[in-house]
Amino acid sequence: MGLLLLLAFLMFGAATPVPPALRAFSSLHLSSSFSSRPAVAMKYSIHYIQQKVDHFGFNTDKTFKQRYLIADTHWQKDGGSILFYTGNEGDIIWFCNNTGFMWDVAEELKAMLVFAEHRYYGESLPFGANSFKDSRHLNFLTSEQALADFAELIKHLKRKIPATKNQPVIALGGSYGGMLAAWFRMKYPHMVVGALASSAPIWHFENLVPCGVFMKTVTKDFRESGPNCSETIRRSWDAISRLARKGTGLHWLSEALHLCTPLTNSQDVQHLKDWISETWVNLAMVDYPYESDFLQPLPAWPIKVVCQYLKNPNVSDSLLLQNIFQALNVYYNYSGQARCLNISETATSSLGALGWSYQACTEMVMPFCSNGIDDMFEPNSWNLKEFSDDCFRQWGVRPRPYWIPTVYGGKNISSHTNIIFSNGELDPWSGGGVTENITDTLVAIVIPKGAHHLDLRANTAFDPTTVLLARSLEVRYMKQWIKDFYASLRRKH
Amino acid sequence: MGLLLLLAFLMFGAATPVPPALRAFSSLHLSSSFSSRPAVAMKYSIHYIQQKVDHFGFNTDKTFKQRYLIADTHWQKDGGSILFYTGNEGDIIWFCNNTGFMWDVAEELKAMLVFAEHRYYGESLPFGANSFKDSRHLNFLTSEQALADFAELIKHLKRKIPATKNQPVIALGGSYGGMLAAWFRMKYPHMVVGALASSAPIWHFENLVPCGVFMKTVTKDFRESGPNCSETIRRSWDAISRLARKGTGLHWLSEALHLCTPLTNSQDVQHLKDWISETWVNLAMVDYPYESDFLQPLPAWPIKVVCQYLKNPNVSDSLLLQNIFQALNVYYNYSGQARCLNISETATSSLGALGWSYQACTEMVMPFCSNGIDDMFEPNSWNLKEFSDDCFRQWGVRPRPYWIPTVYGGKNISSHTNIIFSNGELDPWSGGGVTENITDTLVAIVIPKGAHHLDLRANTAFDPTTVLLARSLEVRYMKQWIKDFYASLRRKH
Repeated sequence: MGLLLLLAFLMFGAATPVPPALRAFSSLHLSSSFSSRPAVAMKYSIHYIQQKVDHFGFNTDKTFKQRYLIADTHWQKDGGSILFYTGNEGDIIWFCNNTGFMWDVAEELKAMLVFAEHRYYGESLPFGANSFKDSRHLNFLTSEQALADFAELIKHLKRKIPATKNQPVIALGGSYGGMLAAWFRMKYPHMVVGALASSAPIWHFENLVPCGVFMKTVTKDFRESGPNCSETIRRSWDAISRLARKGTGLHWLSEALHLCTPLTNSQDVQHLKDWISETWVNLAMVDYPYESDFLQPLPAWPIKVVCQYLKNPNVSDSLLLQNIFQALNVYYNYSGQARCLNISETATSSLGALGWSYQACTEMVMPFCSNGIDDMFEPNSWNLKEFSDDCFRQWGVRPRPYWIPTVYGGKNISSHTNIIFSNGELDPWSGGGVTENITDTLVAIVIPKGAHHLDLRANTAFDPTTVLLARSLEVRYMKQWIKDFYASLRRKH
Repeated sequence: MGLLLLLAFLMFGAATPVPPALRAFSSLHLSSSFSSRPAVAMKYSIHYIQQKVDHFGFNTDKTFKQRYLIADTHWQKDGGSILFYTGNEGDIIWFCNNTGFMWDVAEELKAMLVFAEHRYYGESLPFGANSFKDSRHLNFLTSEQALADFAELIKHLKRKIPATKNQPVIALGGSYGGMLAAWFRMKYPHMVVGALASSAPIWHFENLVPCGVFMKTVTKDFRESGPNCSETIRRSWDAISRLARKGTGLHWLSEALHLCTPLTNSQDVQHLKDWISETWVNLAMVDYPYESDFLQPLPAWPIKVVCQYLKNPNVSDSLLLQNIFQALNVYYNYSGQARCLNISETATSSLGALGWSYQACTEMVMPFCSNGIDDMFEPNSWNLKEFSDDCFRQWGVRPRPYWIPTVYGGKNISSHTNIIFSNGELDPWSGGGVTENITDTLVAIVIPKGAHHLDLRANTAFDPTTVLLARSLEVRYMKQWIKDFYASLRRKH
């Protein structure tokens, strides 16, 4: 169970909420040119809008301040457009800094960039410090409320900035934000002419896709990044178990893996395995072609680097674990500064993590499983009952796994139009995404050599051709939507 | 103000909630063949489904029993369809009995008929007797929650009755129920292949249409039903005022109009005027071509009958009011049984009225006004502030007049498909409805000589050709949707 819950927390690389310290650190690095691409000056202004805490009920008329960013350097009043980032589970400034694609295409699309923060994340807290206090305060943290915030914000902008009134808006987002972008177009097609939903696993619900698809892709990434790599990892679990059962095994493991806090019991061992699994999962999400600093500072193609230490599955348990340590070290200590590895440290200890944990326990119920055969992980079945009980203990709420397909249509979405679903083939989330065209205007773009929403990241000299092609295709679609919008506007006048 | 609030209550003829006594009375009559059409045996079974009280929040997991009816006499497992009535603000059995169109076309469409009761109406009370206690209990009475109920119900049916799983569902509704049918197709296009939205004033919000359009149509109906008819009514208001100012005027008026309770002050006089206005409004809604029993037992073309008494505007005030009494008597005393007219008697004193009053004070904020020039009523401007204060006094909530256009798209709905908007030209609600085609698949059917959702009523020998044509066109569209559904199903297999 541990893994599944943790996965739920960590599910979105780009989306992983970042504690304040790391956040500052990120922006610092992101505004530098670590990836050798020409630095785009990310100049934005910060704004706030009063939103109803509850769009769908009238018992409370309470409002809160939602934060949003505007960047209008390249925006043109004549023939311009608005690119609207549907914020997901984290600080909007972090997303703004991590969505270079929007900055890169702003000039070509004469676009104003708007980044809307998702309620209950960053500074957009409906009840301030009490927002996560209990299920009563958390009651308004849903995707529907977030979409309604976006709709109100767009109406507000069109009033506040008259020249935007007759301009097309396009929704963009990645990961959960990609789902929101797609759902926004589905539910509010009068607000946006189209949506770019990058790495959006809108089908990772109920039984729409097999629950094992995620771990299978992680495994594939490792299998294809070095000989014997996934096999070595597959064997590591039993090796850990065998070592842990020995007299001094826990001590030895703690030393060999340079753990900050020594393992003391079998629960710790399970925790260790979950933490290692998560590491491989995260690596699969951020397996980018260049040095990056997303969840951690990492080298280019980090899984390839990791796999250099995992070439030989046929060694003793202790040697195998020493190799695993080297591999983990790539992820946790690329800077060379770490003195030990902290298995209780996750990137999810901020408010954002709290919010996502609640969402995963209510609407965003994504079944995960592994069987150790089609994947390199220990077998772990999807147990809704157990998951639900855990959620009830933690939040006092029960998940409704059926709800997202009911409200957003599951696989039956062909009556909608103008949505691009892009997925990187390396991205474990692609298995829950739309990877084949549904209609002429509900199109899928699959990006070989692409990890989690690589296409939304800034252009770099190291980008594989696949993602360059994807981006240019995306721009083509967006231009078409903009053109159609203006043509229809002219017909009206 | 009185009139506007009352109008809000009474806005939907077909939808007007009926107190239990009248309800029984209605069904009694409706199952008889008073309109000389061959009686269709309305055989249905009554069912219940457990629904979440709050589909959009997880703080409460409470459920309630929603009632629905099934009629499957003509349903066929092979190639059949499901006609789904999106229940509106009243008892579902009453709607079932008043929607003869569905019964008339069931055989041709091999259709199962499903009538879903709207939450907070009829027997579908989320908190039983406490449902209307306060704004906390009423918090879940919204169109969005109602649509979610419908979606869950369809999922439930497709599970419970396996042969329905691969059958197309079509939403149908009239008045507010017509809005729900249209909105259901817009928001849940994966649930229904299309919608017939009859007399659905989806644009009677904010400033989408002029607030005076409603009263203008009422006036037109009277103007065209007899010489001087609307002019006579227009003059009656001042005549009442003048008479009321006289020494024995209140007594005289009370006698002349045969009021059950004599008028005693100027407030009563305003109340009298509101009640008379409402009567004309109701007549405009139910100006059907045959004897009917909708809000009241009425003759065929009741406005024509009424206008026979209102031919001469140039008479003394007292004679004019005596003529007005004769006209009112057509509406309130067609049976000849009434001993006096009760101006405090409305059809809105039931639970249903309570529910609709709350909805009008929250989401369903429809601006009405009259100016006495383009219409035959006393000038009455739309005063949102006053309306809002009244709502706050009554329910402790404030209306959000902007919300319906935000969530359902206002006039910008062209990206949706497969919705028929039908409107009767006599119907005052047609002014807030869609009366011109928007696209090839968002089509308008205008029915000359048609009152409030006449097309949804049972076929009769007295129906004007216009409504027969409308119905046959509606069936043609529905058949096309069903055909398209099965064609697409075959492509998938």
